[in-house]
Amino acid sequence: MTDLMKMGQNAVVAKYELQNLSTKQKNEVLIAVSKRLVHDTEKILHQNNIDIEEAQKAGMHPGLIDRLRLTESRIRDISLGIEQIAELNDPVGALLETIERPNGLVIKKVRVPIGVIGIFYESRPNVTADAFSLCFKTGNAVILKGGSDAIYSNIALTNSIRDALTESHVNPDCVQLIEDTDRETARAFMKLSDYVDLLIPRGGAGLIKTVKENSTIPVIETGTGNCHIYVDDAADVNKLIPILINAKTQRIGVCNACESLVVHEAIADMVLPLIGKALQEHQVEIRGDESVLKSLPYAIRATEEDYGKEYLDTIISIKVVKSIEDAISHINRYNTKHSESIITENMEHADQFLKGIDAACVYVNASTRFTDGFMFGFGAEIGISTQKIHARGPMGLNELTSYKYMIYGNGQIRE
Amino acid sequence: MTDLMKMGQNAVVAKYELQNLSTKQKNEVLIAVSKRLVHDTEKILHQNNIDIEEAQKAGMHPGLIDRLRLTESRIRDISLGIEQIAELNDPVGALLETIERPNGLVIKKVRVPIGVIGIFYESRPNVTADAFSLCFKTGNAVILKGGSDAIYSNIALTNSIRDALTESHVNPDCVQLIEDTDRETARAFMKLSDYVDLLIPRGGAGLIKTVKENSTIPVIETGTGNCHIYVDDAADVNKLIPILINAKTQRIGVCNACESLVVHEAIADMVLPLIGKALQEHQVEIRGDESVLKSLPYAIRATEEDYGKEYLDTIISIKVVKSIEDAISHINRYNTKHSESIITENMEHADQFLKGIDAACVYVNASTRFTDGFMFGFGAEIGISTQKIHARGPMGLNELTSYKYMIYGNGQIRE
Repeated sequence: MTDLMKMGQNAVVAKYELQNLSTKQKNEVLIAVSKRLVHDTEKILHQNNIDIEEAQKAGMHPGLIDRLRLTESRIRDISLGIEQIAELNDPVGALLETIERPNGLVIKKVRVPIGVIGIFYESRPNVTADAFSLCFKTGNAVILKGGSDAIYSNIALTNSIRDALTESHVNPDCVQLIEDTDRETARAFMKLSDYVDLLIPRGGAGLIKTVKENSTIPVIETGTGNCHIYVDDAADVNKLIPILINAKTQRIGVCNACESLVVHEAIADMVLPLIGKALQEHQVEIRGDESVLKSLPYAIRATEEDYGKEYLDTIISIKVVKSIEDAISHINRYNTKHSESIITENMEHADQFLKGIDAACVYVNASTRFTDGFMFGFGAEIGISTQKIHARGPMGLNELTSYKYMIYGNGQIRE
Repeated sequence: MTDLMKMGQNAVVAKYELQNLSTKQKNEVLIAVSKRLVHDTEKILHQNNIDIEEAQKAGMHPGLIDRLRLTESRIRDISLGIEQIAELNDPVGALLETIERPNGLVIKKVRVPIGVIGIFYESRPNVTADAFSLCFKTGNAVILKGGSDAIYSNIALTNSIRDALTESHVNPDCVQLIEDTDRETARAFMKLSDYVDLLIPRGGAGLIKTVKENSTIPVIETGTGNCHIYVDDAADVNKLIPILINAKTQRIGVCNACESLVVHEAIADMVLPLIGKALQEHQVEIRGDESVLKSLPYAIRATEEDYGKEYLDTIISIKVVKSIEDAISHINRYNTKHSESIITENMEHADQFLKGIDAACVYVNASTRFTDGFMFGFGAEIGISTQKIHARGPMGLNELTSYKYMIYGNGQIRE
């Protein structure tokens, strides 16, 4: 059984050592890790193959096996990803604000690492390297808890990273992997608030719910996206159709894919046939209300449940509404606070939608697929936050930091 | 039994209405609330008196009864406090950042309310008005859960505020009080994550621990402060003594009071007698290690437990260390990440301390008592955060907001 308390203590020791490294030192270590992973390719692929064989024996869906599989080229991509993180600006130490007080105190608000970050994830072994490098760059020690399906791959990757850290004379406990994959260990990890400052679950809705309900460590919820496109009565159909098809079909299994369409009734008769045709060409099943069924007799009747569903599939729900206000209420009721888009040429409506919608990212005339750290220009991301505390939307390096007030006095006491 | 789900739903309705109010409208409502409380003074004092009588019957400590008691002048102060919040800048709507992407997307990061905030507090009825006004100003609906000792006072205050809201044609559910004071209701409230975005416990360590361990809503821990002053070998004694006495004795029951002193051994023989004399003059009991006992024979031997304790009393622990590095490790081991101060004339040591100490606020040559939203110039505060997520240190109006990305496109799709 994993000694979690010991791992927590090790992480705290590592975090203080890590905070003393300069940006240059951290970048050099990241490059060393990147090279080491390529160097260890054969070893890693061998271990990955054990996971793949187990998965095949267990009858895992081929799509999931593909997510689990590492190849020489995928390891090169992981390695390249780490080099790219080394090239990004280091947010740690940035001066965010200076406050001068009448009594002469000078208060500097400075970006600092969060400390120790825990990451829960499922069967994608690339998250191991990804989470390590983002946390390391921002001066955070990380404790990883990956899925049991990828355990051999994760152990191999973590060992290579730790070897590279040791060779670089850096505490290898900057990254630790929990090797036990049972539920009790996972739940005990969620209670490790004496050592861990933040827990980020990356994965499906079930994983996130479990972490949220059991953790005594602050959690950032990521990833669930029931994203809508609202077709306003002033929509430009030439923008609508490409955006809808892009948001729904470019990648169906991602959190920023469109799952539901809301259409203003004044434009419904005109646009629904075009929408139906475009979706059918892309083999997307339509589930709609009464009005939708009238225009598109081949559509399936939507249930209440459909409107709350993140399909992650070639299915879309469609709802016709009487007004933009009704569209906003409908979306605020069923969305997961992720990404929503309005298609309109009326800038007052755009403004009303931008203000009224409760979501991390609200778009005008663009695909919801842009909610992504890379697309936002952050250079990297650890996930998409769907809660409102600490960080919202794509989380890049800045969002993996906290701040500290440094206050310079010359003998001030409080009156 | 309180219908918490209904309260949550009411709060969500109120939050959307509140987000449509302009700054001017919110300020006018706050002034109306402020006047209403003065107008209702007699009614409120009558209810407060029931709490006071109950407390006296139960044999409550006179100091606690004093914290519970409202008077005409205290209600005027509460009312004045609300007017002051009305005068502060409204952070909602502030443009934090604009990102322009190569594909023409313009991403605006804008401050928005958090949504629905839950506040847990103990027996100070003034928190009722304080928490309401800070949340209202920042566009957040609030659900209050006060202590059973102050229940009649809290009901009276909340009713007055709600009456003022109704008269101002604002949804009174912008503030709701949970009137049931039993544990089951409290625990059920901590699970209301479908409606409540953030929970802030204000009170003692026990309350905070209970909330942290039971809540499925994101929690901001506030208030516990085991604050240190480190006397460096390059300390100026003329700065040290006034700062120490101020930090230890100006108010003993507050989280930013000094609870422990760490002294460099090179200066110990010189400063300990001066420290001892000054503390004795202020009736402060000293608990020290071997070296301290040698210099100050009247001191009590400190146990391991002493160094981890927030006394909130006229007691201080003292530890002699061999180096600034040892001072930093000792403090990082025992502190609660609140406020720490170094007394030194050596700016390299100051820098090492500022960087090495893990706390929300790190001071050079100043009293820890300055960790306070008012002292920082924030104009108000809801508490002092001792965690690293979302907000650290004094939480003013900005810290009661989240942000949202508003993205302007003209048909962009993801390649």
